[in-house]
Amino acid sequence: MEKITNIPTLSQIQAAHKAIAAYVHKTPVLTNESINKITGASIYFKCENFQKIGAFKIRGATCAALALTETEKANGIATHSSGNHAQAVALTAQLHQIDAYVVMPETAPEIKKNATRGYGAKVTICEPTLASRQGTLDQIVSETGATYIPSFDHYNVIAGQATVAKELIEEVEGLEVIMSPIGGGGLMSGTALSTHYLLPNARIIGAEPKLVDDAYRSFKTGVKQINNGTKSIADGLLTNLSDKTFEIITKYVHDIITVSEQEIVDAMRLIWERMKIVVEPSSAVPLAAILQQKERFEGKKIGLILTGGNVDVSQLPF
Amino acid sequence: MEKITNIPTLSQIQAAHKAIAAYVHKTPVLTNESINKITGASIYFKCENFQKIGAFKIRGATCAALALTETEKANGIATHSSGNHAQAVALTAQLHQIDAYVVMPETAPEIKKNATRGYGAKVTICEPTLASRQGTLDQIVSETGATYIPSFDHYNVIAGQATVAKELIEEVEGLEVIMSPIGGGGLMSGTALSTHYLLPNARIIGAEPKLVDDAYRSFKTGVKQINNGTKSIADGLLTNLSDKTFEIITKYVHDIITVSEQEIVDAMRLIWERMKIVVEPSSAVPLAAILQQKERFEGKKIGLILTGGNVDVSQLPF
Repeated sequence: MEKITNIPTLSQIQAAHKAIAAYVHKTPVLTNESINKITGASIYFKCENFQKIGAFKIRGATCAALALTETEKANGIATHSSGNHAQAVALTAQLHQIDAYVVMPETAPEIKKNATRGYGAKVTICEPTLASRQGTLDQIVSETGATYIPSFDHYNVIAGQATVAKELIEEVEGLEVIMSPIGGGGLMSGTALSTHYLLPNARIIGAEPKLVDDAYRSFKTGVKQINNGTKSIADGLLTNLSDKTFEIITKYVHDIITVSEQEIVDAMRLIWERMKIVVEPSSAVPLAAILQQKERFEGKKIGLILTGGNVDVSQLPF
Repeated sequence: MEKITNIPTLSQIQAAHKAIAAYVHKTPVLTNESINKITGASIYFKCENFQKIGAFKIRGATCAALALTETEKANGIATHSSGNHAQAVALTAQLHQIDAYVVMPETAPEIKKNATRGYGAKVTICEPTLASRQGTLDQIVSETGATYIPSFDHYNVIAGQATVAKELIEEVEGLEVIMSPIGGGGLMSGTALSTHYLLPNARIIGAEPKLVDDAYRSFKTGVKQINNGTKSIADGLLTNLSDKTFEIITKYVHDIITVSEQEIVDAMRLIWERMKIVVEPSSAVPLAAILQQKERFEGKKIGLILTGGNVDVSQLPF
């Protein structure tokens, strides 16, 4: 796998897909009669909650790790993350027999810290601020020579995440709308690229919690904005866009819809109760957007990415 | 579909499968690396939580309804149930455009009462005793002429439930053990029959909560026993065996394992967290049995039926 140095092309995404195929699941696409009846749309849910480590993040991390030189591999990989990307980097390193250094804020759920350690990563706990996370990571990188794999601000990571929508588009014919949630924008960027290349007539729509709506405001103003708080229940979507993801989203996404916390919880509950699957709050954000704007999506054939299923089942919002 | 008047034969189960195929889902079979690692076994989970109405019960109810004469259909069908069978009878009636009368105890969850009404059934609420349930049902049957479809003490229902194991055995080659939970014994009977006919060398093992272990005691003593209480969290398994299911289970099941409430909760949580699917406590009972007796199942290729996913997500045991 090459190191990708600009917005991934179709052939780079295709190469990424081929390269990571042995390390990730081709996740199933599910439909649900009740939810179709409630929304009036035909929704095809791409279930990355069934992905390895329980979330799509393994795709991007694998795509980045496969581009390392032998020397880089010998020094290991590093990242900071409070959640799914931590486990993705740890498992990727384990599968490729390289060292992993993961900086996690002390506020990260114990279950995620333990899972990351369970994959053999060296976990360093830091203060729950971006400054502490980045500072701790920088020190580890300078001490070990490990390569930093960011969770979204990286073209190989974006190309890896693009394989989710690629699989969905290749499996389900005639999708008219493709939807994904937006956090840092890695998945949204990959989704937008794959859809742009493979299904150019489809509408590409992102969904974001109102409480962390930097992508919405950036998209509407054309100037990259940042979040004022990090309070949403959708704990996978608290991050700001990066320059790379902002550029791709501005170019290729057609619209972004923001939803309230209650709309997220209601949509999440609907998925649990009707589809009988465990998804994390971030996964429910696009369905919340459809429910909020029913008339807009009525009769449409929609591909929707469920990002993951890593949720503490003893701490549910319902 | 004929009315089956004795222990279903293989050809009757095959006919039942053909007859109900248009009305039920062929549910997926899932495996999970983490759970295989934890148990040391290879477990193939037959996911009836993804079945219509969220549980296998729709199979048996459909198989019974399809055997009705036109006159019987004109008078409708009736049952009493606190849970999945209520919805199964209601949906079956709706699909066949016949009337459904469902007696439900006042203690049944509102969500299940509403779901049953949602399928168009006339729901009558009664006291939460078997006497009140049966008495209320008898009165409705005598007033309407509706045909009573019991939830398990009925050979067409058993033949319908037998199609779960049939699909599992036909999809996964070389299973050595087939496991199902036991409540009234309808699913266990059907599972035992399909396995006996189609996979005669496999071990047929039932699993039951210790708190409602009538099947275990009946099996061990050779005399049909009844439960002293109905307190298990596995709310689908509180019923006693009937004469019909006791006979089949005695003949064809090889062993029954009982598990504690904590073992059920732990196994349920494992399924939720590792498989990312929503299952009801009853579904977790066979996995709890495997975890309790690891050495016995180590290295074995096991087919295990997850019975359903109808659980109140705001009332979880963890």
